[in-house]
Amino acid sequence: MLRISIFGTGNVAGHLFEAFAAADSVEVEQVIGRNKTALASFERKAETVSDFTQIADTDIFIIAVKDGAIAEISEYLKEKKGLVVHTSGSVPMAVLSHCPRYGVLYPLQTFSKDRNLVMDSVPFCLEAHDKRDLQLLKKLAGRISGKIYEVDSQQRKALHLAAVFVNNFTNHLYHIGKEICDEKGLPFAILQPLIEETADKIKQLSPYEAQTGPARRGDSETMAAHLEQVTKLENPTFKDVYEILSASVKKLYRTDDGASN
Amino acid sequence: MLRISIFGTGNVAGHLFEAFAAADSVEVEQVIGRNKTALASFERKAETVSDFTQIADTDIFIIAVKDGAIAEISEYLKEKKGLVVHTSGSVPMAVLSHCPRYGVLYPLQTFSKDRNLVMDSVPFCLEAHDKRDLQLLKKLAGRISGKIYEVDSQQRKALHLAAVFVNNFTNHLYHIGKEICDEKGLPFAILQPLIEETADKIKQLSPYEAQTGPARRGDSETMAAHLEQVTKLENPTFKDVYEILSASVKKLYRTDDGASN
Repeated sequence: MLRISIFGTGNVAGHLFEAFAAADSVEVEQVIGRNKTALASFERKAETVSDFTQIADTDIFIIAVKDGAIAEISEYLKEKKGLVVHTSGSVPMAVLSHCPRYGVLYPLQTFSKDRNLVMDSVPFCLEAHDKRDLQLLKKLAGRISGKIYEVDSQQRKALHLAAVFVNNFTNHLYHIGKEICDEKGLPFAILQPLIEETADKIKQLSPYEAQTGPARRGDSETMAAHLEQVTKLENPTFKDVYEILSASVKKLYRTDDGASN
Repeated sequence: MLRISIFGTGNVAGHLFEAFAAADSVEVEQVIGRNKTALASFERKAETVSDFTQIADTDIFIIAVKDGAIAEISEYLKEKKGLVVHTSGSVPMAVLSHCPRYGVLYPLQTFSKDRNLVMDSVPFCLEAHDKRDLQLLKKLAGRISGKIYEVDSQQRKALHLAAVFVNNFTNHLYHIGKEICDEKGLPFAILQPLIEETADKIKQLSPYEAQTGPARRGDSETMAAHLEQVTKLENPTFKDVYEILSASVKKLYRTDDGASN
């Protein structure tokens, strides 16, 4: 049995809590947070604690709070014998180095309230100062996910940046697609199959191979027509997005092989 | 029985051919194209024709060729009694107006060679000069897809632009994600669950609601750190992409409600 504590009451803490509470051979002993209202939703399945002098001794302390609050919370754990980990993509492991045992358990996924996730397919990026602790983290993460990766702080930082491109920015492109549909009275659902196929296709082809469209084939006529259209949209920023992304695609293929498709 | 002809031997023509050849109550009578080698792959299931004076009379002629070649091919059909349609997102229906009956059958999807698609979930955007012909197109498209939309030429042009954002540009963001992984020796597969969840989430939340990340919450510190990282990438264009997309996200939320999350 692995006895764990979770710090935080936000989306990541909530999703990890639900997964670990349902997992075999894991016991979530305490959920610790300052917001008593938010803590209430955890009460049924674990002890909840808002007084930081009441932190119990467990095997693993998971700090799932905002990046800026990790160091402060870890101050309460520097006398603990258990392994202290945070769940952030962009904070180096070293921020916990004043604790006797420390590491990182970074779930590479976007978590939303009110949206269930299959935790088994969430990649867990693990790092630990000590090799045995890395094994312990693998054991713990393996209880809720089938996708376990060893990732050091530099790599994790890169992944966090990559996630901004493929998740945050992609979502913004979806938003632009929706605005275009809205302006013409079209349902956004009409784009959903294309969006899903785009995401699915790259399991079979690399994104480099999968690239299509006017910028890829150097079709200046279509791009000029699109620019004229995009200029008429309510939001003038979308024109800049069209121009920069087209330029980036064009540059990528022109530099590489001078070809078009 | 609907008797149809398909012009073209590319991806769209090939996928439509396979779907219609397998459909009930549709007969693909001819596949017409200039490239005899490409025509060969259609021979088993239809008559193939490379001599444009040998075009048979069928109920519907589907011109599934490059945008620039549609008008030229339609010249061969201006004496035909059947309905002439093209499959392009960006070409107005009027390009076919010298034919007695004309319309558009636009499948809103990205088609790749060697990749099977479930045609039933592909949205078909239909337009016809005549109301009865619109009904005929609905009947035809309904034989292979469950998603039928009436879309006029202006709307279709907007959809084509929206598709560039959600498909072409999104795929380019995936490519940037892959380059970042490659530079750090990480498998691109580690991003796949995040990519799929991003595409799936917007069935439940609007992209506007689903937006997260440093630009959304106005986290200048993380954005500065990302910019420093992205500047070190091999491809200098990716920094511009980061900046413009972050600016676009920031602007959207600042203008709307001044809030952050």
